Amino acid sequence: MFYPEPIAKLIDSFSRLPGIGPKTAARLAFHVLRMKEEDTIDFAKALVNVKRKLTYCSVCCNITDTDPCRICSDKTRDHSVICVVQEAKDLVAMERTREFAGQYHVLHGAISPMDGVGPEDIKIAELLQRLSDERVQELILATNPNIEGEATAMYLSRLVKPFGIKVTRIAHGLPVGGDLEYADEVTLSKALEGRRELN
Amino acid sequence: MFYPEPIAKLIDSFSRLPGIGPKTAARLAFHVLRMKEEDTIDFAKALVNVKRKLTYCSVCCNITDTDPCRICSDKTRDHSVICVVQEAKDLVAMERTREFAGQYHVLHGAISPMDGVGPEDIKIAELLQRLSDERVQELILATNPNIEGEATAMYLSRLVKPFGIKVTRIAHGLPVGGDLEYADEVTLSKALEGRRELN
Ligand SMILES: [Zn+2]
Ligand SMILES: [Zn+2]
Repeated sequence: MFYPEPIAKLIDSFSRLPGIGPKTAARLAFHVLRMKEEDTIDFAKALVNVKRKLTYCSVCCNITDTDPCRICSDKTRDHSVICVVQEAKDLVAMERTREFAGQYHVLHGAISPMDGVGPEDIKIAELLQRLSDERVQELILATNPNIEGEATAMYLSRLVKPFGIKVTRIAHGLPVGGDLEYADEVTLSKALEGRRELN
Repeated sequence: MFYPEPIAKLIDSFSRLPGIGPKTAARLAFHVLRMKEEDTIDFAKALVNVKRKLTYCSVCCNITDTDPCRICSDKTRDHSVICVVQEAKDLVAMERTREFAGQYHVLHGAISPMDGVGPEDIKIAELLQRLSDERVQELILATNPNIEGEATAMYLSRLVKPFGIKVTRIAHGLPVGGDLEYADEVTLSKALEGRRELN
């Protein structure tokens, strides 16, 4: 109302982002106004490219710009073990530990009856399909150490049992109730090291 | 490094914004990934349009999409009084009070020898030019109530004296040391009401 339309629109776009209130949105918009035009165009391109150039890996469901993704097509990595995570950012957290050289599977969520998220709403069917690959010997369940993550791990463990594949759960070295994403490298390495087989 | 390039670039763009750390930047980038494509394109357009469609009003130096801006070209507003503010967002704060129906002048900064900002670095020449308009009878100095804002008000007061124009300073109803932008409407209204002439 008091701002010229182009800046009002940008404030609106910023304020739709999570955790960005109207004051911060205005501050960011005014910052853009003072940015170099080329940097602003780079920012705009980056936004659009994230939607246009990224896709989901047809194998592991991770976000990728090539299909299969770099990890799935990397022959130097161990294809006998699949680490199952909830989100792409959890995969990044695992990679940062540099302790794991296997494969991943990104569920894109966790089972949560409270939120109406069932097994069919996350990438479990895609995971089961991968188990027909004879190379797969172990599934590491690295879902978050909270109620939804545990429920998902339990569900997967029962589901996979008939396949005769070893199923392990990442150790509770992680602070319980926390997000895997925020764990430091050491904690995460320890959690990986201390993983145990689910019965 | 662990992210596909398009998302790494977007994280980089977000993390260049003030007050956005790497964790928040990653969270925002992943949010964009889940946004509708049309909303993302709107966001990208808003960024570019802020640079392309906005200019500075040739009269008051406010940010505008028309020149002169809507306030300068509004004949129902009082052209005998000019309220001088540091930033465009201060003008918006003043407008929100709905207590002022005159004209504005946006300095785009304040005199600050410590930061190497002199009178020639802000829109003072443009302000002086406007004083040849015979309609102008009063200048309200609404720069921030901090050292730089006071210094700027003092400087302007002395500079404008020879023009025989009444120069007033917005009252210190505002918390001293604060930013005009963050003042609530009532405080700002009171500050405007209690303005006094500078000697
Ligand atoms: Zn993959
Ligand atoms: Zn104007």
